[in-house]
Amino acid sequence: MGKAPPLSPLAPAAFPELPVIPGVRFATVEAGVRYAGRTDVMLAELAPGTAMAGVFTRSATRSAAVLDCEAKIGNHDSSGAAIIVNSGNANAFTGRNGTESVRAVTQAVADTLNLPETRVFSSSTGVIGEPLPHDRINAKLSSLKTSLSDDAIADAAQAIMTTDTFPKGSGTTIEIDGQMVRIAGIAKGSGMIAPDMATMLVYIFTDAAIDQPVLQSMVSALNETSFNCITVDGDTSTSDTLLVAATGASGIRVTENSIGFMEGLRRVMLDLAHQVVRDGEGATKFVEISVTGATSDTEARTHAMAIANSPLVKTAIAGEDPNWGRIVMAIGKSGAPADRDRLEIRFGDVLVAHNGWVNPDYREEDAAAHMKQQELEVHVDLGLGGGRAVVWTCDLTHGYIEINADYRS
Amino acid sequence: MGKAPPLSPLAPAAFPELPVIPGVRFATVEAGVRYAGRTDVMLAELAPGTAMAGVFTRSATRSAAVLDCEAKIGNHDSSGAAIIVNSGNANAFTGRNGTESVRAVTQAVADTLNLPETRVFSSSTGVIGEPLPHDRINAKLSSLKTSLSDDAIADAAQAIMTTDTFPKGSGTTIEIDGQMVRIAGIAKGSGMIAPDMATMLVYIFTDAAIDQPVLQSMVSALNETSFNCITVDGDTSTSDTLLVAATGASGIRVTENSIGFMEGLRRVMLDLAHQVVRDGEGATKFVEISVTGATSDTEARTHAMAIANSPLVKTAIAGEDPNWGRIVMAIGKSGAPADRDRLEIRFGDVLVAHNGWVNPDYREEDAAAHMKQQELEVHVDLGLGGGRAVVWTCDLTHGYIEINADYRS
Repeated sequence: MGKAPPLSPLAPAAFPELPVIPGVRFATVEAGVRYAGRTDVMLAELAPGTAMAGVFTRSATRSAAVLDCEAKIGNHDSSGAAIIVNSGNANAFTGRNGTESVRAVTQAVADTLNLPETRVFSSSTGVIGEPLPHDRINAKLSSLKTSLSDDAIADAAQAIMTTDTFPKGSGTTIEIDGQMVRIAGIAKGSGMIAPDMATMLVYIFTDAAIDQPVLQSMVSALNETSFNCITVDGDTSTSDTLLVAATGASGIRVTENSIGFMEGLRRVMLDLAHQVVRDGEGATKFVEISVTGATSDTEARTHAMAIANSPLVKTAIAGEDPNWGRIVMAIGKSGAPADRDRLEIRFGDVLVAHNGWVNPDYREEDAAAHMKQQELEVHVDLGLGGGRAVVWTCDLTHGYIEINADYRS
Repeated sequence: MGKAPPLSPLAPAAFPELPVIPGVRFATVEAGVRYAGRTDVMLAELAPGTAMAGVFTRSATRSAAVLDCEAKIGNHDSSGAAIIVNSGNANAFTGRNGTESVRAVTQAVADTLNLPETRVFSSSTGVIGEPLPHDRINAKLSSLKTSLSDDAIADAAQAIMTTDTFPKGSGTTIEIDGQMVRIAGIAKGSGMIAPDMATMLVYIFTDAAIDQPVLQSMVSALNETSFNCITVDGDTSTSDTLLVAATGASGIRVTENSIGFMEGLRRVMLDLAHQVVRDGEGATKFVEISVTGATSDTEARTHAMAIANSPLVKTAIAGEDPNWGRIVMAIGKSGAPADRDRLEIRFGDVLVAHNGWVNPDYREEDAAAHMKQQELEVHVDLGLGGGRAVVWTCDLTHGYIEINADYRS
């Protein structure tokens, strides 16, 4: 890996203050999996009774750790649980060795924390195709156990980074029947970020008491409008994992009707998703693309993603060029229904085009002023129906080329 | 438009010697549509009896000229024909004005050359969404008519360029029953190049005598494995047009069984398609991606295009990095069937991975040596069936960002 890229200009000012989640303890360590001089393994220990839900990449070449998590996630078990994550090596496309490495690590964590192996979830992120030196991880487990702490979530966010330029965290507290429930989550992800699956590595913790099937259906539903609606480069990781752990330590029961909890979880997931876009490789602009008037929500998302993934749109945004012709192009190529003569396009509040042509009152300097901002909005109305979608992306800059033309060297 | 990008390092040494096609005459002029100090309009006049075939973009926002060509292409007519092309302005997303501009130009060409308006085909390429100043074109028609010449095809190739760094031409002569038939074609295209339609502007001429339906079915079939198998950036133009004109002036009849002619036409189309990739915006590498062992040819093409359009693969190629993990990633995300443990990946002759993991004899320096070449081959065998596809693309470099972050400014 070359020298670290500079801090994203879209980074938040600081890592947020996150609520401590009763029932979760974190530890991190320098295991030297690939990187030197930084933490690269994080362990989260979860109290007995914790319900685990997850969403994983649908890549046909998904990693051994993802396959293992998928097999375990539906288990209902009143024992404790653990999450072990390493950065630097994705343990993807490593054949049978990959499966054996996952088993070696999860078994060792289970032994160390006195858990059933079926309750240990693992993730690996980093280079694809190189064997995971799992002995280096296992050699650190007893020291990890010793240092477990309930307020080390910021360290955990740091340990799971790869090309990320800042650690990502988000949290909230929700009042339910006069009592407080807490949610805190961390994420990593910067490149190889694309929609249509749970992207990146994301771990969210809450002390609410939720039955596993309820938690799973909440997480799956909220994933569709958060992590599945962001894209950096249209490329999809082999390792993407979202795990949500509900420890129940608050004693407050959450059901499928808990609107307040759902809304809190939605905010945390969306915040983490946006932070991933803000750390998009080489990003200098954060872009919200909303499409309305489509024949369905699905068709709206297809159009929005065609715009968000178009290299010509993304380079125009990098160049602060209100090149709305490229928006028209992307809509045309998306494959979803569109009628050229009903299109309406806005940059922020600036009405650029409607009825199939440029707005007669359009002044390019108005749109150009909007493009100079760090946070941009592109809105397209198709004029066909009630379908709508919002997705988030960043621009495509020299920074992306620099980072990716020599990531392994 | 900013300053012209430098000549592509993948450009051919010179524009080829093309055969003169009896029945076709060309003229070009500086009409000042958008550019100054260069030719920007080309006219091709076609002899009576010419059969016209075409394939057009399937974009939902295709331009007025494309819609007009589509409506006219199936006509069987023994009169002559003409093709009029301007660069600098795409006349796309220009509403009713766009349709009126096409009609104004085609009617004026028809009047000038004494043709029915239904036999005048037009194309426009350049900026989207600005009104086409068609009066500037029409003002030059009588001077274009005066300068029509049967050996000006190289000038025609020059006049239709936009961000192209070199003019593109290809030709051949085929012996049929002891007599010679000639084919010559020109193309333009550099960015906004993507598959699943006839890409760019391409004009091919032959003096063979072919019935229009036979010519159309030949062109449509050959298009699938030539222009529809290239990609520069995955973005699809609103104006893509391929027109093939058979003047019949040789008196030699070609039927659907003329294998020799088909093969000659195939070579010309493929050569022009490759030249477009060689002029891909910012390209420094020409990459052939072949996929075999897929469950069908369609699935093979889906995988090949996922690899060819992946920004992570394309930046790795730019960095001369044999990062085969990104090939695995692209296969995984393509959506087509793949079995991780049956994958075989080669860079050139170097076997990188098979049976789901790196080849034990693989030495990175061998693959790295292949990556340093200007012409690369990536081969993937999926081990599932007999489906196969070959596509061509280029790398993604700083040059692409430079060209597209300020194309309009």
